[in-house]
Amino acid sequence: MKRINIGILGLGTVGAGSAKVLQDNQAEIQRRLGCEVVVTAASVRDLNADRDCDCSSIDMLTDPFAVIERDDVDIVVELIGGDSLAKELVMQAMSNGKHVVTANKALVAMHGDELFAHAQAHQVAFCFEAAVAGGISIIKALREGLAGNQIELIAGIINGTGNFILTEMRDKGRDFDDVLKEAQTLGYAEADPTFDVEGIDAAHKLTILAALGFGIPMAFDKLIIEGISDLELKDVDFAGELGYRIKHLGIAKATDAGLELRVHPTLIPSKRLIANVDGVMNAVLVKGNAVGNTLHYGAGAGALPTASAVVADICDVVRAMSLDVSQRVPYTGFQASQVVERAIKLPEQIECAFYLRFEVADVPGVMSKLSAEFAQREISIEAIKQTEPEPGQESVSVIFITQITTEASVNEVLSTLGALPEVSAPVVKLRVEHFH
Amino acid sequence: MKRINIGILGLGTVGAGSAKVLQDNQAEIQRRLGCEVVVTAASVRDLNADRDCDCSSIDMLTDPFAVIERDDVDIVVELIGGDSLAKELVMQAMSNGKHVVTANKALVAMHGDELFAHAQAHQVAFCFEAAVAGGISIIKALREGLAGNQIELIAGIINGTGNFILTEMRDKGRDFDDVLKEAQTLGYAEADPTFDVEGIDAAHKLTILAALGFGIPMAFDKLIIEGISDLELKDVDFAGELGYRIKHLGIAKATDAGLELRVHPTLIPSKRLIANVDGVMNAVLVKGNAVGNTLHYGAGAGALPTASAVVADICDVVRAMSLDVSQRVPYTGFQASQVVERAIKLPEQIECAFYLRFEVADVPGVMSKLSAEFAQREISIEAIKQTEPEPGQESVSVIFITQITTEASVNEVLSTLGALPEVSAPVVKLRVEHFH
Repeated sequence: MKRINIGILGLGTVGAGSAKVLQDNQAEIQRRLGCEVVVTAASVRDLNADRDCDCSSIDMLTDPFAVIERDDVDIVVELIGGDSLAKELVMQAMSNGKHVVTANKALVAMHGDELFAHAQAHQVAFCFEAAVAGGISIIKALREGLAGNQIELIAGIINGTGNFILTEMRDKGRDFDDVLKEAQTLGYAEADPTFDVEGIDAAHKLTILAALGFGIPMAFDKLIIEGISDLELKDVDFAGELGYRIKHLGIAKATDAGLELRVHPTLIPSKRLIANVDGVMNAVLVKGNAVGNTLHYGAGAGALPTASAVVADICDVVRAMSLDVSQRVPYTGFQASQVVERAIKLPEQIECAFYLRFEVADVPGVMSKLSAEFAQREISIEAIKQTEPEPGQESVSVIFITQITTEASVNEVLSTLGALPEVSAPVVKLRVEHFH
Repeated sequence: MKRINIGILGLGTVGAGSAKVLQDNQAEIQRRLGCEVVVTAASVRDLNADRDCDCSSIDMLTDPFAVIERDDVDIVVELIGGDSLAKELVMQAMSNGKHVVTANKALVAMHGDELFAHAQAHQVAFCFEAAVAGGISIIKALREGLAGNQIELIAGIINGTGNFILTEMRDKGRDFDDVLKEAQTLGYAEADPTFDVEGIDAAHKLTILAALGFGIPMAFDKLIIEGISDLELKDVDFAGELGYRIKHLGIAKATDAGLELRVHPTLIPSKRLIANVDGVMNAVLVKGNAVGNTLHYGAGAGALPTASAVVADICDVVRAMSLDVSQRVPYTGFQASQVVERAIKLPEQIECAFYLRFEVADVPGVMSKLSAEFAQREISIEAIKQTEPEPGQESVSVIFITQITTEASVNEVLSTLGALPEVSAPVVKLRVEHFH
């Protein structure tokens, strides 16, 4: 039986998980591929660390460059992370004629175009299913399963840490900071949670999804990115009372006026399936002009779910190798010559519905002043909610949910209304998507 | 630019939809594939019927055999349905060296093994993404996206008609017969609804999913199949009160004692995502030993969603043709030599939890008699519910939800308890799955 050799760069959580899946599922993988897939070498920082896989037949090296030079490595699996050393290794591995599989979203989002060209030049596969939404095979769905469609919308819960925090806030009425500390204790969140809670991680993933959905170059720098660290519990609660749940979404939407690429907390009607994706789970909604709405749900992180995607990529490469083919589907799903820039909207050009919370003095006439301003700007209102004043407090919360309008119009309303003497705190502005 | 020619057998709803998607999305499909895909010929029963696609450049023929003989047809798309004429056409098309794409679940479920061997012998592609769950790319997910896993469970809402009926029963408190009539008026259900409501259609699809999940031959004849036509509204309501929803599921489960392959109405905890898949939508839950639970959701029927899957298959074939490859992934996802029989459980060997409703005389001691029998058979009870007697009625409903046990044990209990003089009607037995 033919044998394909794997070299893994980085035998941490996902690396050891990938080795374990290849070992545990060896028989089933052979039934599928008709050849043996074996991890021959791996690079690690600490040779003596405990690992969740059998390392007895793996050559353990401390120098990752030694792995990519070996003749007995056909496919390099890059699981080091970051976009500096990882990039150097991946480029060199390709130059050496190795196929590359990676779970590194920052690498692909920041350097994807260059890596694709390099892979193409060296006629090697470059696969990154594990870079977005862990075990969910969303890369394959976009490049292949939905290839007959013009993609109209991609909207994903693509950061498990953020979704865990939002779920706990809603279900248990806990503050953001409180839940974040627990997430750090549980290992769901890093000591520095910036990447997760400020939306950078989600933005890396959305950059990749948008490139594959629309056939555009990586556009990380053009994304609108808002985190969830400023989200107040009271807005989670008010949203619930109005029939919505707040999720931290990455949204890529095609409109006649250009693409919208944005990461921000978003109100979604509670009835939508994606609004019911809780805890650390991920889900990606894809709307195509033929298929309509589809939802792709699964574990977005963790050793074995991410390994599931890494090994799926390995299987894809091995199946192509068996047919003497390198990359079977173009890296973005579009022919390289057809990957073209499209206009990307500026923040004020975004069109959606809005949730706006005003803290106002509990005096007559305030509601009419607020409403009049919306009417004057021709912004229709979908729903209004006003709280009762709490004992000892002089202000009440007034929430407007608008119909679809532009962010520019809403900003104009807010600049006027925010200056009213009756408005006692900065207005909270959140976006609302209905996903019909 | 290279041109690939398509011949469509049957230009009805899905056929015209597929032609329309190829036409409307021609530019985007060319960006993806780097070649032109054109429908050159189609067979129809009535040359003069109105169709939802532009037929001006399609050679319209009444003889389907004429289509598969043409030199200007590279890929034959079979959308005639049924497993007699369709089989003859598909076999002949393959013999002629044509790649074949079909949406025909009965054909694949009943004759898949023979068709795969024939396709293999003639080195042509045979694709059937559209045969299961319409626009959801579940075939690709099983064969490729989850290829690193040992599949433990597949559970799907794979008949939209049945799901529409169950959703209406639950949401609007309507009887089965009443909703079925509306479904027929709306065009969701056929004049003869047997295939949909008795589970035959779902069983065809489950047969295919099981073959792909486990690498087994088509096993339609070994499936346990129960429909929803006997389902009473009161059980839908009681299930709801106990925290469950009833869905008509196709379930394929791997256990140490063999495979369970079964289609039946199933109680699922209301909190599960799949329990919230409503109306005509489909969803397939797949659990792999690495990835855990995944859910694949979308439209399971309709012209354009089904066409989305047909065109995805066409794209797959064209991409392979560009590389001078025929079938890239084995037809079941497993090497032909590795497709092997596995033990399939008989009905009484099934293990799951059960919902059992007894109609009993409202006299003292009945509950204790019922409970004692369960205890004696060592069946643990998860929940019990007893209704108040309604005015003028002498019987009450008593519902037991058991913990996991075998169907044989439950049947023994029921044969004893069903004979009690206090039990006034046949006991209702439904299965319960928790999908942890």
